[in-house]
Amino acid sequence: MTTTADPRATVESYWTAAGLRDWDAFAATLADEVLYDLPQTRERIRGKERYVSFNREYPGEWRVRVERIVADRDGGQVAVRTLFTVGAREMPAIHFFTFDAEGRISEITDFWPEPYEPPAGREHLVERY
Amino acid sequence: MTTTADPRATVESYWTAAGLRDWDAFAATLADEVLYDLPQTRERIRGKERYVSFNREYPGEWRVRVERIVADRDGGQVAVRTLFTVGAREMPAIHFFTFDAEGRISEITDFWPEPYEPPAGREHLVERY
Repeated sequence: MTTTADPRATVESYWTAAGLRDWDAFAATLADEVLYDLPQTRERIRGKERYVSFNREYPGEWRVRVERIVADRDGGQVAVRTLFTVGAREMPAIHFFTFDAEGRISEITDFWPEPYEPPAGREHLVERY
Repeated sequence: MTTTADPRATVESYWTAAGLRDWDAFAATLADEVLYDLPQTRERIRGKERYVSFNREYPGEWRVRVERIVADRDGGQVAVRTLFTVGAREMPAIHFFTFDAEGRISEITDFWPEPYEPPAGREHLVERY
């Protein structure tokens, strides 16, 4: 197992391992005390073992594509946009990562924004697609 | 009017100006051809004039607090987490920014993730808060 102090490379390894269901490689990117936070459901998962289980057990034949990585080397944090596909359904997600002193992921915060209908009153400014 | 080539400083000016309803200072952070994208509603707004109008006309006594800035200087992009408050309601939002050659904001993509109930089957791994 190797870790790297480069936040972008660690996050790339995290997503590659997740896509391959390579849970050993996935776990190698994580701090032992990793904290996973889902603000929309107010759920938290504490610790590498539970967080790997959460991902390993996650139902559905999901695939993930990384759309954008925003890597703040000075600030030691990374934001990622992904697109998850489950059958015909596409779900964008956003992920924020922070790191411990060894460069392993110490916190992950996920957001899953759903489609919604826009409010009335701004049709003169917007176009729909 | 001054522009800066530092993406983080430009984004900080953008949020400060929005909070103060200083629409001249807000406009000064934007490229003339700025593109605003709301993937959840599939809405787009093109151009500085329309985008400033969209913000100036936005209803409600909203306030905004910047929670986190992820500034990728090498990649020329920034991700931001904010918390909007309208009366007693709090709404987290996530914003991605890119920039033109002069350091002005050329693209903004906003996400507004809503609360939802978690699916069953992971209670053995998570805690609620």
